[in-house]
Amino acid sequence: MKTITIIGAGMMGSALAFPARENGNEVRLVGTHLDREIIDACRKTGRHPKFVKDFPAGITYYQIEELLDAIRGADFIICGVSSFGVEWYRDEVLPKLEENVPMISVTKGLMNTENGDLLTYLDIWQEKLDALGKKIPLNAIGGPCTSYELVAHDQTEVTFCGKDMDVLRMIKSAMATDYYHISLSTDIVGVESAVALKNGFALGITLTIGLNQKEFGIDSELHYNSQAAVFGQAVREMNKLLHLQNAGDFDNLVLGAGDLYVTVYGGRTRLVGILLGRGLNIDEAKAELKGVTLESLVVAERVAKAIRVKAEKGLINLQDFPLLMHIDEIITQKKAVNIPWEKFTFERE
Amino acid sequence: MKTITIIGAGMMGSALAFPARENGNEVRLVGTHLDREIIDACRKTGRHPKFVKDFPAGITYYQIEELLDAIRGADFIICGVSSFGVEWYRDEVLPKLEENVPMISVTKGLMNTENGDLLTYLDIWQEKLDALGKKIPLNAIGGPCTSYELVAHDQTEVTFCGKDMDVLRMIKSAMATDYYHISLSTDIVGVESAVALKNGFALGITLTIGLNQKEFGIDSELHYNSQAAVFGQAVREMNKLLHLQNAGDFDNLVLGAGDLYVTVYGGRTRLVGILLGRGLNIDEAKAELKGVTLESLVVAERVAKAIRVKAEKGLINLQDFPLLMHIDEIITQKKAVNIPWEKFTFERE
Repeated sequence: MKTITIIGAGMMGSALAFPARENGNEVRLVGTHLDREIIDACRKTGRHPKFVKDFPAGITYYQIEELLDAIRGADFIICGVSSFGVEWYRDEVLPKLEENVPMISVTKGLMNTENGDLLTYLDIWQEKLDALGKKIPLNAIGGPCTSYELVAHDQTEVTFCGKDMDVLRMIKSAMATDYYHISLSTDIVGVESAVALKNGFALGITLTIGLNQKEFGIDSELHYNSQAAVFGQAVREMNKLLHLQNAGDFDNLVLGAGDLYVTVYGGRTRLVGILLGRGLNIDEAKAELKGVTLESLVVAERVAKAIRVKAEKGLINLQDFPLLMHIDEIITQKKAVNIPWEKFTFERE
Repeated sequence: MKTITIIGAGMMGSALAFPARENGNEVRLVGTHLDREIIDACRKTGRHPKFVKDFPAGITYYQIEELLDAIRGADFIICGVSSFGVEWYRDEVLPKLEENVPMISVTKGLMNTENGDLLTYLDIWQEKLDALGKKIPLNAIGGPCTSYELVAHDQTEVTFCGKDMDVLRMIKSAMATDYYHISLSTDIVGVESAVALKNGFALGITLTIGLNQKEFGIDSELHYNSQAAVFGQAVREMNKLLHLQNAGDFDNLVLGAGDLYVTVYGGRTRLVGILLGRGLNIDEAKAELKGVTLESLVVAERVAKAIRVKAEKGLINLQDFPLLMHIDEIITQKKAVNIPWEKFTFERE
């Protein structure tokens, strides 16, 4: 039995409390300053306000002011903040964490730098730890997993990544259940890049749903030829981007493709893609979804920025990324959806 | 303008008449002996009985006895028979075709041999042509394309493959439209293997839909974590199989992944997978779908047979194919669905 502290009571962090607690571990769920009402509700009802099922009994809930109590004696920490909380977590939480207690993050995303590199969030946090002179083994979770389905015990395959296989095995043994299946990889950049890159591409696939609704009516049947066409092109461009990240190992692509598959059906990215496909511009689509976190847009924009820098340096050819470039135009230049289908074709001799 | 003869008036062959005729070509649609009533209906109503939209005007329809009239002067032939018609086409049609008139086939599948090889249908037909001493350039169509969506003008990306790029370009120029986008490849084995292999794996993904219906009710919401988990494993095993076919080029995998994506939503494979997932055994599921052609089962069984032979020869390890092996057990040994989730996990250092 381990003691596990989850920091961030959003849906994904909270969902991980299920396998963690069902395995008999001590589980402490800490809300950020944004999660105050969620923690109040969990204490009162034993259920996350966004879930349709009670938490397993015995989880303890903490407000952010109680963070130090919550992490005391923990065997490992799960970071469950969204990508908008990465800097907050770096500045407010990392300095308080205990040395040598491993941390595993479920936050997906990449940060672009001025010279066109794409850093993982573990890179960002490691930099801070180095500055603090603090040793905390950083790990991350990638793979196709929506929180509400994890709560429902849908069969789920994820990958834990980190530098030290022994640490990964320890965390896996605490978290694995008969529905939560865990692969382990020391290729942090590969895993984190794969599961972040899929975001913008998932948006691309869902554009076709909106395009078809525009043509055949909002209640028309889904069409899959066009979804599959963009899916294939997305896999092609993701593979190129993984190679750019020096993470061309096939396991990473498998992870990205699976995660792409699930994200097409995920609520927020799907919604915005459909709205754009129907003909709204990006501002109108965002207004329609007011208050909803759109990590997919942020990641797509960052990746596009990074590869534009690399293209200026002559390191890549933007014509290899027609789908990503179009998604970027839609997001940053507010262009109308006009998928460059013919650019997806090729001749191969 | 070309003259195009389509042999086989099933849904896919007939759907190709749309881009062919809309481009202004002369199009002749020939029914096989199984399509007699379809051709009668087309002549009478101008519509295929399974489509919700009339054919473009000006197509001419032929019964199989009129085959020689239908192929006279054609610039190329489209073979639209199902995989159950491959031998019939070889024995009854190939001998009648005119020399040097290219043929392109939309039939997807592979044939296993006793020594564990997987042959494309073009291989089977080429053998016959060699025996006849006849020269006909054989080509094929691969990629994610369901017939009814092609008829609806959903944006569609496919790949034409064949030995001669000039022939492929000629056929492409006759068939490409603003919704039917065509890549060209001289890697026949790669394209044909990719789009055939996906069949069994699509069945694997749909099993999870039935499993969830068994657990949460037939009208429960779809779950995607488990679909994505099998999707990822399918991509992994497809990639291994493509390498076994000496067709490991990434373009082939992209094609297979896109085709896998669309096939999960295709009618027949999805139906049988769901029934199996709900708990029916293969005989019960087949009985439920009486009269429906289940090419996916045939292909899965053949591929499994082939790799078992290769494993006996020590050329591969069956443990690299846990998904395919389970699908094969379900189909050939009538075993109950019990997806080996944990076998999909790995450690990668």
